[in-house]
Amino acid sequence: MYYHDKRLQYPVRVDSPDPIYARMLQQAIGGIEGEIRVCFQYFFQAWGNRAPTTKYRDMLLHTATEEIGHIEMLATAVAMNLETAPTKVQEAGAADAIVGAVMGGENPRHIAEGMLHKTLLSAGMAAFPGNSDGLPFDMSHIYASGNIAADMYCNVAAEATGRTLAVRLYNATNDAGMRDMWSFLIARDTMHQQQWLAVIEELGGAAGTLPIPNSFPQSEENQKFNYNFFSTSADGSPPPAGRWTQGPSLDGKGEFSVVQNQPMGEEPVLGPARPDSGAQSQQIG
Amino acid sequence: MYYHDKRLQYPVRVDSPDPIYARMLQQAIGGIEGEIRVCFQYFFQAWGNRAPTTKYRDMLLHTATEEIGHIEMLATAVAMNLETAPTKVQEAGAADAIVGAVMGGENPRHIAEGMLHKTLLSAGMAAFPGNSDGLPFDMSHIYASGNIAADMYCNVAAEATGRTLAVRLYNATNDAGMRDMWSFLIARDTMHQQQWLAVIEELGGAAGTLPIPNSFPQSEENQKFNYNFFSTSADGSPPPAGRWTQGPSLDGKGEFSVVQNQPMGEEPVLGPARPDSGAQSQQIG
Amino acid sequence: MYYHDKRLQYPVRVDSPDPIYARMLQQAIGGIEGEIRVCFQYFFQAWGNRAPTTKYRDMLLHTATEEIGHIEMLATAVAMNLETAPTKVQEAGAADAIVGAVMGGENPRHIAEGMLHKTLLSAGMAAFPGNSDGLPFDMSHIYASGNIAADMYCNVAAEATGRTLAVRLYNATNDAGMRDMWSFLIARDTMHQQQWLAVIEELGGAAGTLPIPNSFPQSEENQKFNYNFFSTSADGSPPPAGRWTQGPSLDGKGEFSVVQNQPMGEEPVLGPARPDSGAQSQQIG
Amino acid sequence: MYYHDKRLQYPVRVDSPDPIYARMLQQAIGGIEGEIRVCFQYFFQAWGNRAPTTKYRDMLLHTATEEIGHIEMLATAVAMNLETAPTKVQEAGAADAIVGAVMGGENPRHIAEGMLHKTLLSAGMAAFPGNSDGLPFDMSHIYASGNIAADMYCNVAAEATGRTLAVRLYNATNDAGMRDMWSFLIARDTMHQQQWLAVIEELGGAAGTLPIPNSFPQSEENQKFNYNFFSTSADGSPPPAGRWTQGPSLDGKGEFSVVQNQPMGEEPVLGPARPDSGAQSQQIG
Amino acid sequence: MYYHDKRLQYPVRVDSPDPIYARMLQQAIGGIEGEIRVCFQYFFQAWGNRAPTTKYRDMLLHTATEEIGHIEMLATAVAMNLETAPTKVQEAGAADAIVGAVMGGENPRHIAEGMLHKTLLSAGMAAFPGNSDGLPFDMSHIYASGNIAADMYCNVAAEATGRTLAVRLYNATNDAGMRDMWSFLIARDTMHQQQWLAVIEELGGAAGTLPIPNSFPQSEENQKFNYNFFSTSADGSPPPAGRWTQGPSLDGKGEFSVVQNQPMGEEPVLGPARPDSGAQSQQIG
Amino acid sequence: MYYHDKRLQYPVRVDSPDPIYARMLQQAIGGIEGEIRVCFQYFFQAWGNRAPTTKYRDMLLHTATEEIGHIEMLATAVAMNLETAPTKVQEAGAADAIVGAVMGGENPRHIAEGMLHKTLLSAGMAAFPGNSDGLPFDMSHIYASGNIAADMYCNVAAEATGRTLAVRLYNATNDAGMRDMWSFLIARDTMHQQQWLAVIEELGGAAGTLPIPNSFPQSEENQKFNYNFFSTSADGSPPPAGRWTQGPSLDGKGEFSVVQNQPMGEEPVLGPARPDSGAQSQQIG
Repeated sequence: MYYHDKRLQYPVRVDSPDPIYARMLQQAIGGIEGEIRVCFQYFFQAWGNRAPTTKYRDMLLHTATEEIGHIEMLATAVAMNLETAPTKVQEAGAADAIVGAVMGGENPRHIAEGMLHKTLLSAGMAAFPGNSDGLPFDMSHIYASGNIAADMYCNVAAEATGRTLAVRLYNATNDAGMRDMWSFLIARDTMHQQQWLAVIEELGGAAGTLPIPNSFPQSEENQKFNYNFFSTSADGSPPPAGRWTQGPSLDGKGEFSVVQNQPMGEEPVLGPARPDSGAQSQQIG
Repeated sequence: MYYHDKRLQYPVRVDSPDPIYARMLQQAIGGIEGEIRVCFQYFFQAWGNRAPTTKYRDMLLHTATEEIGHIEMLATAVAMNLETAPTKVQEAGAADAIVGAVMGGENPRHIAEGMLHKTLLSAGMAAFPGNSDGLPFDMSHIYASGNIAADMYCNVAAEATGRTLAVRLYNATNDAGMRDMWSFLIARDTMHQQQWLAVIEELGGAAGTLPIPNSFPQSEENQKFNYNFFSTSADGSPPPAGRWTQGPSLDGKGEFSVVQNQPMGEEPVLGPARPDSGAQSQQIG
Repeated sequence: MYYHDKRLQYPVRVDSPDPIYARMLQQAIGGIEGEIRVCFQYFFQAWGNRAPTTKYRDMLLHTATEEIGHIEMLATAVAMNLETAPTKVQEAGAADAIVGAVMGGENPRHIAEGMLHKTLLSAGMAAFPGNSDGLPFDMSHIYASGNIAADMYCNVAAEATGRTLAVRLYNATNDAGMRDMWSFLIARDTMHQQQWLAVIEELGGAAGTLPIPNSFPQSEENQKFNYNFFSTSADGSPPPAGRWTQGPSLDGKGEFSVVQNQPMGEEPVLGPARPDSGAQSQQIG
Repeated sequence: MYYHDKRLQYPVRVDSPDPIYARMLQQAIGGIEGEIRVCFQYFFQAWGNRAPTTKYRDMLLHTATEEIGHIEMLATAVAMNLETAPTKVQEAGAADAIVGAVMGGENPRHIAEGMLHKTLLSAGMAAFPGNSDGLPFDMSHIYASGNIAADMYCNVAAEATGRTLAVRLYNATNDAGMRDMWSFLIARDTMHQQQWLAVIEELGGAAGTLPIPNSFPQSEENQKFNYNFFSTSADGSPPPAGRWTQGPSLDGKGEFSVVQNQPMGEEPVLGPARPDSGAQSQQIG
Repeated sequence: MYYHDKRLQYPVRVDSPDPIYARMLQQAIGGIEGEIRVCFQYFFQAWGNRAPTTKYRDMLLHTATEEIGHIEMLATAVAMNLETAPTKVQEAGAADAIVGAVMGGENPRHIAEGMLHKTLLSAGMAAFPGNSDGLPFDMSHIYASGNIAADMYCNVAAEATGRTLAVRLYNATNDAGMRDMWSFLIARDTMHQQQWLAVIEELGGAAGTLPIPNSFPQSEENQKFNYNFFSTSADGSPPPAGRWTQGPSLDGKGEFSVVQNQPMGEEPVLGPARPDSGAQSQQIG
Repeated sequence: MYYHDKRLQYPVRVDSPDPIYARMLQQAIGGIEGEIRVCFQYFFQAWGNRAPTTKYRDMLLHTATEEIGHIEMLATAVAMNLETAPTKVQEAGAADAIVGAVMGGENPRHIAEGMLHKTLLSAGMAAFPGNSDGLPFDMSHIYASGNIAADMYCNVAAEATGRTLAVRLYNATNDAGMRDMWSFLIARDTMHQQQWLAVIEELGGAAGTLPIPNSFPQSEENQKFNYNFFSTSADGSPPPAGRWTQGPSLDGKGEFSVVQNQPMGEEPVLGPARPDSGAQSQQIG
């Protein structure tokens, strides 16, 4: 179960409120690379963890709980960036409008544009659990497969795309307060990338974990095709050489090679449609 | 651009058609662990690849193109498993119904249940681009971030959850034809897991790629918090020890440690609601 | 604006309530081939209709308004099919359970299965605006393009898939009441298919409407490729002959022919990633 | 920020694991009436709360934090109900299959049906953040409008539909452990319904809060139509009488009456389509 | 069943067409606070209404039918606001572009921005059933639970967020025609908020309806925890006092109190993964 | 199975990169009128095709395969239009900002706006499989019904809305490279509209295909109502006359007429709620 402290994990400060930046921040809340995703991904991996030990369950709970605080920091940052956003059209002469348009002021058109977004129109000067396009976060992005190695790679993927987004948002602002917040969150992403790869290392690295799931006997997979790079060039020209076209496989259990893809099957011929299946009579044959 | 051969990459054979298994196969077509996902993930990573070389674009195109053939194989398998599915209610006496219910025959209730699914009701004895719950595939699961290391980990995640699903589907059938198809597809997943990790190795492994993105100067992240495991125990008890709580970080650039999480920020105080913002008068203050 | 009569357009009668059939009926309410779709498709086409005349707006309103009554009929049919659905687990001995399982009675397992669906668990013995898989209707399936010929073909497509579904649902029940309802709704779909094609005929048929939109000068399209069937056979073998491979085009403005698809473009070479774009340093080159 | 205790808020015990009930429980996790919804709804209302006081922000944080523990309890209950679910097809003779079908045993067909669901096929014997139809939770159901009275009614609605679902799930099982868990969660919903209505009372009840938002001057709304029940009977027959057809309005600011709905506007005539708008030439006029 | 009159319920007039405002209006059509939602919510509540009387079914039909006319009014308003929107790039010199940019004229960049939105690119100068971010309306927001008290609170919530949105849209324009339309629609929302609360009053108010559902015996809920406010402060500090922390409960059946949240359960220990479940061998134990 | 050539089907050239146009192009990739849709619609129709011949399967594969190349061309065009998009905020004085705002240069506000979109923030200067609003493509728009005539009309609808969008995008740019690409793609849409109508003609035209499905005996539909236009005028005024109100039906099997819609059914009276169904006690009666 859970507790809260009404203070933030790390200070959030906005020097120059910017409604457009508020909207960009939403991507880090409710985007697929955002904080809701990692928070719930770690929670569901923890709550469903099956193993002879509760060690990984426990570890995941620590980090999932930390991530709630990151959503909170970003939601606070959105609200602070909206402090001066327009809420009502003011009567304005054409001359004022010109200045307004150039300086980013409150002429009618900019008000309309500013209010377009869900942060103002629907959420009333606050954050919401969706991305910068207004798309609600979709929980199908919570990857928790029941296989711990698969899950760890899903977590590395989440933190790698997450830190990439964070860096882009750092670069997109000059606000010193916002940059300080990002310097903290980017650092945490650095740690979390390592953390999940460290689990893979603890489980034996490539040799100890591949192929995932490693509980399925490789004798039951088609061993003629499990370490080949298939080329699909229409003219049969070879693919570029790389670590994956020759040499031992990363798990040490095979040897990479290149194969030209060719049909091994036949043209599939399905049975004709049946009389009561709602097909056209021409299909029933 | 692209070409086709109307034959299949590998033979697809169904010995005993099973409409319920047809529905399970849909997860491998349009589930988030399925073939549409990897196909389009590799295509979009290829089409947007930016690098001083087109090598990775080219490599991704080979594998993306192979994956179209996997969707085709699975769609064929679904249609074949539906060959004998019921399409019309037959008049049946109560006695026949008893036998039918037990033997999986065509009593009215089973027909209704069998026809519930989109494969029959909407697609008319054929596959569709959705998962085993009837949910259409959602293209937001195509991860292509513009960062090649992040993308490779997204690909490992996709192939690891994909092979996990494939193994579950192998285990869920006794049909020899279906198991032969899976022995091939599982082997291909084995290769593809290795392939993306081989790119990471070619890029320098953990030391050469972490933290992702490695083009952002670590001096701009808060270096006090980038290699610490944060504990969130309410009672301050320490987290379980692991590779990630001590020792050098995987990228060799830091040292892991444990920190008890504590608020560094204050309780955030947002400004009151503004008069024209659609708030209640009690909030405007 | 709109009015109602609390009576139904056509009688809805269920002789033997069947919760599984209730669930199947949902596809005709909130499936993409269902009545919500056609209702709102015609409304939005009407409300946005631009033409020198309001004739088509008016005609669309008549049919859209009729369709509300069809949703109402189907929602009533769902509720009636749920009249005897289980709502609570009863204590039952093993012997009773055997009979129950076979006869479709209320043993605990069947209760659980029956209550699984949204019609019972969420909607409480009533219909909801989603399909038979529980997926809510998604309004992106309301096709209204601003081009009247495109819209008419969208409407034919909707009524053709709609009548196909209706026929499948007719075939899936022996209930005389339900079949009588379907005999009416299937008849209405027959009419509506004709109705939209009649608009195409009134607009001049193929010659008068193609290519859609016919307001774009064909001189601005690449006239070398506008009546050719492109073959993508990897081995260059010809495609099957059909009405579309030779002879005059349907609009009488061209002649069909077959062309073997070949790359006319080059391999695209995108610029390398830029330093601040969140890419890996290896991509920046 | 947030803390955790690895113990549960309240004991979760399953006496007879039941994979079908596991699936039903998902509705209480990721359904629109479920715990993820209330948890995040209260968090986002708290994080965006604007008022002269932080009192409501604080109160919302207490309850939102409690709700994380409810998701955790239900996720644990799902995993426990899946403990004995089938994971592999066993060879079975026809005679065994008959018994199996009746007793709910592990004959191939039931295994297939049992494995259909995301809890097994995708999540591997664990819960996931979606509903009982496999639909991922959609964060657009997090209602947080920036208006505290509107938000409180959204919360009452969430807890009322939530307790209704909880009662249905209580009724759907005979498992003593599960019923004990529900007796606790149902009690918490009782409290939370009251809690949000108590805020309305504290804000002055109907007189003090209606119409929402009460900061908009009613003089700017059309006062001819703000306390009338509009009848839409096609034949002009009167609607049924009720508290809302006569007597003083609930806010004491008006008097209810009944009005027969009649068009006050004209048939709208939109301009014809413009030449470059992609319309048909017949629409351009 | 249903009828229409081709005239509007209330006049819709646009004095100065504004494509950006057209886009904002979409939120009131297809946003979760919009008119499609209330229209279909009332319809589905009516069509599924179970009670000893058809009074509530009938009442709901009157209001649902009125709401179709509101969608129609707003769709008309969107089309009218798009009357002068750009459809084609004009050649323009740099000097013209400056004036254009400031005055909102048709320079190429503004045309591109203006055409971005679905109202132009997809719908061709007309409304569509989605919100101001282009997101299609999602029918899962139609709340109809089968419990009339729960449904009435869902309706109050819908009309409260709906009127809040309407007020924001009123404030966002200076167009006299648009403001007149809103003065009518805002008035109707005022009435509808009252209407649903009047049903609650008719059913006995808090005492007669709480806890919802009131048909479940409170003796079966855990009466130790049904009127307590749970505090989750990590440091045990008390929550802010309010109407909900002390005094009689609103239904008069209990007394509010404050309780510090503490784990009553244990750390859950799930069984290890099973051999054929697709887990890693390290999890199988 | 499938092959690729790394060159493009047709040259893609961008003379003046334009990030806003990049975003508009997304509609043609991942919009419901876009290329992913037609590509997968034709593939799934091919893979599920049931008929006495494989001719239509084969033909569909040719065109589906061609469409992959169209997605590739558009994805390339998006990436090329993003070549000069801003990735980092530059310090800029107020004077520069004025010029920047007018000329579309890189002042901070424009950078923020430019980076808002998923093409930059999430995809890193590349295309993604979603529309111009950032909405991921939703595979439920892949229409494949198992009825070949229904499917052909779905395809005509897709190519008609697709060419309408293409024309709008042609009109929205002055870039000569982009217009050349569109001249090719628009020509292909011209062909594909004809191609699907040619199948209808080959199947016998209206007389040979209507009503769809033509395998259902019309004797089982209610023949009193299958060629009538139903009028829903509240005042009984007649609908506008058209090809669909009189004369022979298009399939030659009936005669059109006009009927005033009237209730043929009664007010439906559902049973009261049952005691354990989670309803209010007032509903149980």
